[in-house]
Amino acid sequence: MSETETLLYKRTQSEAPKPPLPKTELPCMFDEPTNASNWHKHVNWPQSILLLGTPLIGLYGIFTTELQTKTLIWAVIYYFITGLGITAGYHRLWAHRAYNATVPLRILLCAAGTGAVEGSTYWWSRGHRAHHRWTDTDKDPYCAHRGFFFSHLGWMLVTRPRSRIGYADVADLKADKILNFQHRHYPYLALFMGFLFPTLVAGLGWGDYRGGYFYAGVIRLIVVHHATFCVNSLAHYLGEDTFDDHHTPRDHWITAFATMGEGYHNFHHEFPQDYRNAIVYYQYDPTKWLIILCSWLGLAYNLKTFPANEVSKGIVQMKEKKILAAKRGLDFGIPIHELPVFTWKEYQNLVVNENKKWTLIEGILYDLEGFDHPGGEKYISSGIGKDMTTAFNGGVYSHSNGARNLLTMMRVGVLRNGMEVMHENE
Amino acid sequence: MSETETLLYKRTQSEAPKPPLPKTELPCMFDEPTNASNWHKHVNWPQSILLLGTPLIGLYGIFTTELQTKTLIWAVIYYFITGLGITAGYHRLWAHRAYNATVPLRILLCAAGTGAVEGSTYWWSRGHRAHHRWTDTDKDPYCAHRGFFFSHLGWMLVTRPRSRIGYADVADLKADKILNFQHRHYPYLALFMGFLFPTLVAGLGWGDYRGGYFYAGVIRLIVVHHATFCVNSLAHYLGEDTFDDHHTPRDHWITAFATMGEGYHNFHHEFPQDYRNAIVYYQYDPTKWLIILCSWLGLAYNLKTFPANEVSKGIVQMKEKKILAAKRGLDFGIPIHELPVFTWKEYQNLVVNENKKWTLIEGILYDLEGFDHPGGEKYISSGIGKDMTTAFNGGVYSHSNGARNLLTMMRVGVLRNGMEVMHENE
Ligand code: HEM
Ligand code: HEM
Ligand SMILES: [Fe+2]
Ligand SMILES: [Fe+2]
Ligand SMILES: [Fe+2]
Ligand SMILES: [Fe+2]
Repeated sequence: MSETETLLYKRTQSEAPKPPLPKTELPCMFDEPTNASNWHKHVNWPQSILLLGTPLIGLYGIFTTELQTKTLIWAVIYYFITGLGITAGYHRLWAHRAYNATVPLRILLCAAGTGAVEGSTYWWSRGHRAHHRWTDTDKDPYCAHRGFFFSHLGWMLVTRPRSRIGYADVADLKADKILNFQHRHYPYLALFMGFLFPTLVAGLGWGDYRGGYFYAGVIRLIVVHHATFCVNSLAHYLGEDTFDDHHTPRDHWITAFATMGEGYHNFHHEFPQDYRNAIVYYQYDPTKWLIILCSWLGLAYNLKTFPANEVSKGIVQMKEKKILAAKRGLDFGIPIHELPVFTWKEYQNLVVNENKKWTLIEGILYDLEGFDHPGGEKYISSGIGKDMTTAFNGGVYSHSNGARNLLTMMRVGVLRNGMEVMHENE
Repeated sequence: MSETETLLYKRTQSEAPKPPLPKTELPCMFDEPTNASNWHKHVNWPQSILLLGTPLIGLYGIFTTELQTKTLIWAVIYYFITGLGITAGYHRLWAHRAYNATVPLRILLCAAGTGAVEGSTYWWSRGHRAHHRWTDTDKDPYCAHRGFFFSHLGWMLVTRPRSRIGYADVADLKADKILNFQHRHYPYLALFMGFLFPTLVAGLGWGDYRGGYFYAGVIRLIVVHHATFCVNSLAHYLGEDTFDDHHTPRDHWITAFATMGEGYHNFHHEFPQDYRNAIVYYQYDPTKWLIILCSWLGLAYNLKTFPANEVSKGIVQMKEKKILAAKRGLDFGIPIHELPVFTWKEYQNLVVNENKKWTLIEGILYDLEGFDHPGGEKYISSGIGKDMTTAFNGGVYSHSNGARNLLTMMRVGVLRNGMEVMHENE
């Protein structure tokens, strides 16, 4: 048993890490092919109008409305409030149950998330749980294999048959009173939190109704939208597969900065119930920092983490995989069992009569023809046709691992009996 | 045979990488202990006076001599000329035969190296070859295990018995006419190249004899000294052991900047005959650049490199070592062969009568007590006392490698026969 195996112990088939899945051929997006007469049925009109219309309204606003400093500050603050409503609320609290929150915090997060106008928590979490359970398959509502645009925005512009989205258990969400209330009154709440509330704050606060509407309402909304959408697109394209290479999720600091800390997405898909996304203290994860703050304030509790031992195993296993791939590209010399066998007499004959520059080290014959010995020519020339085992291993000089690697490349044969044996010569 | 072994092939003992050497207890530096009556015999007076005296002269020069811009530029240029004389000439050309040089280049490098006042090439290379052959032992003239100061400067302040320095083959240096000439006339040549020449250039060039002497002569010399001495001290202390962890040499860009490119010292000790120190193009190695330039000009030829395949093996082997060390710090669960064996009846009895939350996956029993299942409680509760092999492996959900790692930690037993077997129940 090699040292590696001793350390890993034996695993059952179920326990053993699985190789990455092949990218599957995805079926047609709809049950029937799209054509001139049915295409309008495949468009999700309300969502398309919202998602494509807001940028137009925003553009109009930018060119017609002066941006006041106070309104700008408010828009940025409201960007963080509603963004964190999605990441800390919709995502980590409700979709993943990564921690528990007291009623006041749940109300706050639900209200904040509503302001991001990304659907009710119930609808959002249901889709997100399917995304985790059926990642990269046709049952994944924002399957990254359908391309960057589809996973970012495209999936919301189309109406796919309900049955095509994977099953996910949402009994806990259905039982939640706050979420029920939100789901039932969603359109009004979204209009209020998304547009009216930011407008009123700026209007009643410093008289800037118009700026409040365009900047803290519409434009802030577009930014929050595309920032959070990046979790489904960018986070499945850019970066490293630090913990697992089964699926598309990746870790990258750029994604983290774009998404309020949801950028360590390879970690997140591997350990979805962990309240963190970034596990290293200097990595950007304000959502995690907010949750920690809430727990200090007594508003959040039972913050879940995946055991550090298992997280480290993931890192180590991926590194091993990469080393194995690197090794496959290297030449380790002719395997010993494939080498021809020579007798001592044959070896001597080759050296004396055929002028071969062979030498013997530990029963293996090496061809030193053309080898420019870093330690000086004389050591080599005096060893041709002899046994240099002791000299090579420290008798004269204990060679480096580099020299030992080089040695394997010069193998040409195996010596019968491994050394000069008396009776062979008789 | 595991995949790792298949890739490595079988190695002989001689070929196998060796573990790092233990740090040896070094004997007393001199044959007799130092005391009040013999200490002066252990001091190398000429070298001590030169090495400790020049900084004092330099200090005096700084406070009494105005620095002219032209002299500053000349001092910096002469710093590079004499520094490269040591690194490209003394070190890589003569001590390591890393390339061949035409007579004009050899004369130039020899003259430049003489200006660094670090002894004749013959003396320098002899010591340096011993350093490589006997690295970190008592026979290493600048053994890093004697401390940073000793390897940097200390070794030149003392006179150790000649026999204590390791043997190194220097026949090629003895046969070199240029080196012979330099060795015979060394004191005059050193005085000329180290002090007179830089003084004359500044004096005859722009009338600044005094500045030439102090800045381009003395102070430039002190800087070249300590820059090159860093190869023996800093390069054996700071950085990564990228290729081999047998000895103290380390790779670090800070050392590279301090020493004109001799900073990738772990590489250098592993592949000393390679004309490069830095193998990655963006790493700082002006000595290598100079050698390449000379080869373009036809002044240098036969630039030696160690095969890339063997260099990569060194990197991969060190990474493997580090992963193995990381694994040793991780818990991989109770090995299967150490688990107690249970019959199906015993398993059922434990679940039904003793309220154990055990489940069966592929013949192994797992205790799910206190396990908060990320996929939802119901999947777990419905599987207690049953066989969840299929469900866990994709029947319901194909779990991640993270889940599989976690699974190994909950092992509590092995089921006799691996599953419920008819005759057992009869
Ligand atoms: C036949 C296979 C050999 C190979 C592939 C080989 C390779 C090397 C290499 C790569 C080095 C550079 C330093 C290092 O990496 O350790 C080296 C140095 C050296 N080798 Fe060998 N060597 C071989 C045989 C021998 C033998 C048989 C001797 C002695 C009889 C010898 C004596 C030395 C010495 C003394 C040095 C050190 C030179 C110095 O650092 O000044 N080598 N060898
Ligand atoms: C008994 C050992 C089990 C362990 C250690 C375990 C562990 C986990 C973990 C860590 C996850 C998070 C996602 C992942 O890492 O793959 C997960 C998700 C899941 N598990 Fe298990 N599980 C176990 C048994 C089961 C069984 C027997 C079932 C089905 C009957 C099941 C059904 C699921 C489902 C459906 C999910 C996905 C939930 C989602 O992403 O929404 N698990 N499990
Ligand atoms: Fe995702
Ligand atoms: Fe998620
Ligand atoms: Fe060194
Ligand atoms: Fe060297």
